Amino acid sequence: MNNRKLRMGLIGGGKGAFIGKVHHMAAVLDNEIELVCGAFSSDPEKSKASGPEYKIPESRTYTTYEEMITAEAALPESERMDFVSIVTPNRLHFPAAKMALENGFHVVCDKPLTFTLEEAEKLQQIVQKSGLLFAVTYTYTGYPMVKEARQLVKAGKLGKIRKILVEYPQGWLSENIEIGGNKQAGWRTDPEQSGKSCSMGDIGIHASNLVTYITDLEITQLCADLNTFVAGRKLDDDGSVLLKFNNGAKGVLTASQVCAGEENPLAIRVYGELGGLEWRQMEPNTLILKWPDRAKELVRTGVGKLSEQALAHTRLPAGHPEGYIEAFANIYRNFAYALRNSKAGKKPDPLFDFPDITEGLSGMKFIDKVVESSISENKWTNW
Amino acid sequence: MNNRKLRMGLIGGGKGAFIGKVHHMAAVLDNEIELVCGAFSSDPEKSKASGPEYKIPESRTYTTYEEMITAEAALPESERMDFVSIVTPNRLHFPAAKMALENGFHVVCDKPLTFTLEEAEKLQQIVQKSGLLFAVTYTYTGYPMVKEARQLVKAGKLGKIRKILVEYPQGWLSENIEIGGNKQAGWRTDPEQSGKSCSMGDIGIHASNLVTYITDLEITQLCADLNTFVAGRKLDDDGSVLLKFNNGAKGVLTASQVCAGEENPLAIRVYGELGGLEWRQMEPNTLILKWPDRAKELVRTGVGKLSEQALAHTRLPAGHPEGYIEAFANIYRNFAYALRNSKAGKKPDPLFDFPDITEGLSGMKFIDKVVESSISENKWTNW
Amino acid sequence: MNNRKLRMGLIGGGKGAFIGKVHHMAAVLDNEIELVCGAFSSDPEKSKASGPEYKIPESRTYTTYEEMITAEAALPESERMDFVSIVTPNRLHFPAAKMALENGFHVVCDKPLTFTLEEAEKLQQIVQKSGLLFAVTYTYTGYPMVKEARQLVKAGKLGKIRKILVEYPQGWLSENIEIGGNKQAGWRTDPEQSGKSCSMGDIGIHASNLVTYITDLEITQLCADLNTFVAGRKLDDDGSVLLKFNNGAKGVLTASQVCAGEENPLAIRVYGELGGLEWRQMEPNTLILKWPDRAKELVRTGVGKLSEQALAHTRLPAGHPEGYIEAFANIYRNFAYALRNSKAGKKPDPLFDFPDITEGLSGMKFIDKVVESSISENKWTNW
Amino acid sequence: MNNRKLRMGLIGGGKGAFIGKVHHMAAVLDNEIELVCGAFSSDPEKSKASGPEYKIPESRTYTTYEEMITAEAALPESERMDFVSIVTPNRLHFPAAKMALENGFHVVCDKPLTFTLEEAEKLQQIVQKSGLLFAVTYTYTGYPMVKEARQLVKAGKLGKIRKILVEYPQGWLSENIEIGGNKQAGWRTDPEQSGKSCSMGDIGIHASNLVTYITDLEITQLCADLNTFVAGRKLDDDGSVLLKFNNGAKGVLTASQVCAGEENPLAIRVYGELGGLEWRQMEPNTLILKWPDRAKELVRTGVGKLSEQALAHTRLPAGHPEGYIEAFANIYRNFAYALRNSKAGKKPDPLFDFPDITEGLSGMKFIDKVVESSISENKWTNW
Repeated sequence: MNNRKLRMGLIGGGKGAFIGKVHHMAAVLDNEIELVCGAFSSDPEKSKASGPEYKIPESRTYTTYEEMITAEAALPESERMDFVSIVTPNRLHFPAAKMALENGFHVVCDKPLTFTLEEAEKLQQIVQKSGLLFAVTYTYTGYPMVKEARQLVKAGKLGKIRKILVEYPQGWLSENIEIGGNKQAGWRTDPEQSGKSCSMGDIGIHASNLVTYITDLEITQLCADLNTFVAGRKLDDDGSVLLKFNNGAKGVLTASQVCAGEENPLAIRVYGELGGLEWRQMEPNTLILKWPDRAKELVRTGVGKLSEQALAHTRLPAGHPEGYIEAFANIYRNFAYALRNSKAGKKPDPLFDFPDITEGLSGMKFIDKVVESSISENKWTNW
Repeated sequence: MNNRKLRMGLIGGGKGAFIGKVHHMAAVLDNEIELVCGAFSSDPEKSKASGPEYKIPESRTYTTYEEMITAEAALPESERMDFVSIVTPNRLHFPAAKMALENGFHVVCDKPLTFTLEEAEKLQQIVQKSGLLFAVTYTYTGYPMVKEARQLVKAGKLGKIRKILVEYPQGWLSENIEIGGNKQAGWRTDPEQSGKSCSMGDIGIHASNLVTYITDLEITQLCADLNTFVAGRKLDDDGSVLLKFNNGAKGVLTASQVCAGEENPLAIRVYGELGGLEWRQMEPNTLILKWPDRAKELVRTGVGKLSEQALAHTRLPAGHPEGYIEAFANIYRNFAYALRNSKAGKKPDPLFDFPDITEGLSGMKFIDKVVESSISENKWTNW
Repeated sequence: MNNRKLRMGLIGGGKGAFIGKVHHMAAVLDNEIELVCGAFSSDPEKSKASGPEYKIPESRTYTTYEEMITAEAALPESERMDFVSIVTPNRLHFPAAKMALENGFHVVCDKPLTFTLEEAEKLQQIVQKSGLLFAVTYTYTGYPMVKEARQLVKAGKLGKIRKILVEYPQGWLSENIEIGGNKQAGWRTDPEQSGKSCSMGDIGIHASNLVTYITDLEITQLCADLNTFVAGRKLDDDGSVLLKFNNGAKGVLTASQVCAGEENPLAIRVYGELGGLEWRQMEPNTLILKWPDRAKELVRTGVGKLSEQALAHTRLPAGHPEGYIEAFANIYRNFAYALRNSKAGKKPDPLFDFPDITEGLSGMKFIDKVVESSISENKWTNW
Repeated sequence: MNNRKLRMGLIGGGKGAFIGKVHHMAAVLDNEIELVCGAFSSDPEKSKASGPEYKIPESRTYTTYEEMITAEAALPESERMDFVSIVTPNRLHFPAAKMALENGFHVVCDKPLTFTLEEAEKLQQIVQKSGLLFAVTYTYTGYPMVKEARQLVKAGKLGKIRKILVEYPQGWLSENIEIGGNKQAGWRTDPEQSGKSCSMGDIGIHASNLVTYITDLEITQLCADLNTFVAGRKLDDDGSVLLKFNNGAKGVLTASQVCAGEENPLAIRVYGELGGLEWRQMEPNTLILKWPDRAKELVRTGVGKLSEQALAHTRLPAGHPEGYIEAFANIYRNFAYALRNSKAGKKPDPLFDFPDITEGLSGMKFIDKVVESSISENKWTNW
């Protein structure tokens, strides 16, 4: 079994969908997984047309995910897919995941977990009952320097955490490009496809997950302000949130899609009683440590004594940049390892972690709470 | 008159006071001003001991500011000081400024303007009645690239402003150093010396002033969270504020003195409909412009076609770093120019601007409103 | 044919060999190529043991490259490999490539092309006679921003080129780790495995190729200084070269493996009459343009109007870092495209370029000339 | 005597001369020195017109340096200048310095020391005979992080030095602006005013001095290539030099004034057996330390335990940028301290060091040797 690649079926990812190709590259990079089938689009013709792009034979290019799950379940175990990856707009996450699980397939699902919080809660129960593996692709926690950051905080190097600044200021929705037919923008800004929030559901949720992953702290209260800056847009495209954590720490989270000129600069700074850390996704192989009484340190992927967690998620020697696809691939590879362990009756090795249904559910709750808080107007003090 | 240096008297700045020396360096850098007298400390012996450090003769080293103002006012016009600089703890700003103005002396005063908002309002009236010049040393708006930023926003290069992120995360008060006798920390964390707020009064006010200066926007509402993280401290050492502006823009302001390991990284990002800008005080000669559809630009002091405002506040060719003292000196030089104009019966040249009593008062109001908002607990939504 | 993946055989890349895995990841990333067989080591047992690591069945895990080429050539066309990738120490490049070509297999070969310049010249003839494709993996020219740089120079944006600064200061050979059994260091510092030069053959050659690729200039004269700083080492571990180019431009190339603490910061700066450019491998998605009379520009992968060459080598939206593996994969993908074209009787599309035998030969000549120049002592002027 | 400011006379620095004002700002910043007289230009009218700019009374605004030195020498000791600063084009350094010394005045002189090496050797003898103080304003060694670098090398933190990369690539002479009447360019590119070399005499000399200051190594051999890229220019505007040092280390020095788009990015990297350091003038408050086996360190002005040398040359708390004028002022302040000590019959305190006649002479030798080496054509190996 270790000698064969695990077999993946893809739900979504048809022509024009950016993230399907990314999932595929991430899945195959480490030689653990091969794509064997797909239901690439809710449009049957488009789905069929996408098969050759992925070099999938027509026989396993399905027109709906229901068809795929049913057909694959009917194949002999030596042929059928081992798991599905769901990369559709949010609305379809729940029904696709539910059906896959109920047919015995493990699941990798893009974020946010579901369309509504209620679906997320139900899905958690289904996963728990199934005993199957479930991964949510919060990509950014796959970076080695994020793993290093988590270990440093865990080891108490920063002392008790006091302040967290996390930000995700994109600019790509600065204009109403959904009207112009941009597919990515189209579904994300459409409450029927995306859910309650655009800025928080699409990117704020990454920021929130990054905080939890690095610090292990839980939000206890929040105070949010969501905005829709672009005329005609149906969902928020910007928001800022004040945060309280369960250890008394405070935080600020900003996520925006109208910070014109910004690319994808997710960044986090965490300050404790003893020092601070800073990580920036656009220079992902550097982790900056800041100390009150000595030189700042540039911790770098591949340099010096790093945690086993960082080392286990690094492929190249120092100075050979690993990027977004490699971080993404870490999630897939770890999922593959866990799946092999599962098939061998073993528990997953915690060294090879990946975001699971709990983190997925937590993200859905974050969206709900931010929207709830944002509606309340009495937080404002007049000048 | 243009051939003589303007004569300055210093109130505060005795031994151990960091900011007095800075004011002096800033005042003399451009050959417009000389220090001729001082009341350097509320401790008469300390004041006397400080005279030689400033190379001031004993005869003009006074033991109190009252004595100084009285004595200097009695000197012939050809000898007496032209203006005072007030660099004491906040509590003394108002009485010293008031007496100076009432005796016909122009005033340069450190920030925050006064101890209370009420004093600030009174002081504004006194200044207006006096017809004398009054500068508040919000140092950071003296940087050429801040002036460039203001001009770019004014010219509409970014379009209508939507989002402002401003931050001032210091780390120097991460421990209770005021107990250990650190003089700077001592008075700033003492409500009897400093006023209602430490983090906002000392540095948040700079962040707020920077926003106003660059964007010309006014805060209409805010929602603040102030914290005291260090045990035994009497004032806040951290805070974050959500902001609404009069044009519909939103903002986030963070000021903290417990971001362990941070130095003095005041930074601002402003995003409009057409693009964004970023300025960081620790690399002050660079202004980053961000555009949705083309390469980012690094606008640099001394390079290319800059605004006359930026050029008028630059001393060196490109690549010869100008720093904090030079920015500070721009305020003093411009104040000196205005004073010469004033003596010549001319209006100040707006090219050589400096923060005045209005900006000082606005800062005091900011402190008041943030403290007021922070007290209200009903802004929080439970998780 | 477009629907099947191209079949690759790997020569070298056995356990402990870093670069074999990198070639594999690069080859499979874009779903164009699959690894079907390998002769992973000159040690037959090691080769056999490496098969499962690559998920290659025992039947196609060969013990020597000769065996592999012979056996694969005997397979039906629908099964046999399409091309070989040679990732052995330099000494074996020539015989392996020669045999592959003579048996009708296309070749991807790591750099430097061969062990000696003479072999390189012979190989060029063999390739030309064969009509087969030959790629040399100068990885760094696969980066989109390097392609952008080439297009900018080509379009004359910098004007006539005057000065080129290229550097490759690594630190990993600062100690004699080859004695300690480091396999990578072992063969690279061994003249029996590596050839005439270590620092120039391993990394200087990348720097030289980068210059040629970006500027299209040819070296006409050089003046080199090679050094061996680590005691007991048999080849140079450091060198600097003054360069003259065929248009009158001058350059400096530094390559070192004893710059302790450096990772892999290959960097190039090119200055013309109108402006300059700078590219740094450790931040590969940024290309800095410098102008005498206006703001510097940060050209970024995925932002704004880039050349079709840059766009054709980018997989992700702006701000999602693509790194070394992606640059490497661009070479493999382009080779795959050319191979498909070749099988279809078409010429390669110049948009999808890759380094070929000519660039490989040029690198070998560079090594030879640098070693020749370095030996001459009469270049030095005494102080 | 400690209570009075030292009195400076300025030779050069008239209207249009950038560096005169810089010397003045640097001289007065620390309240140790006042400008009392000047011979600001070789053009008497221009000199007279410059007096008011410096707020110097007409009585002490001289028309020639000879007149100034003679007249000042005739003043009572309590009035006359203590020292002269020479900021003229190079040609006048020697005669002005000679006359000042012979009349008992200490001297601060801009670099390069003289017009010719022969003058420099003579001047050294005159200085030594006179027993007077002589400073050469190699500005860049006044930065605190350069002093820190020197101390780290001295303490052996980097181990034995192996490789030095120093570069000074400016762009301001990319076009023939001397023809257009640019005064700065005019005399620097004029062999009658400037000497044997432009690029090396103006900036290469700074790079060379920086190497010596940080490492205490001496050049034993060099191999240089000087170029004149701009048509019609009479002196070199670009050059690169391979260096050998007395401990076996090697180096590369590049200085250019035709690197279009560059500002003033003097930078040095020093690598030893144990680690490396990097300092960049355009971010002068950061010193990067690089280690083979642990995180890079960002040593910052004002942060942590720094050498007493760094601390003694820092005015502001961490994160308040100090720049070029402050570095320059460190030379003047230290010169003032030494002068006070001299007047008190004490030796200079080595903590407050400044570049002296020996470093000045060494720079002149560097220019000579580079020019000598550059002429030799037999260093080149044909491709």
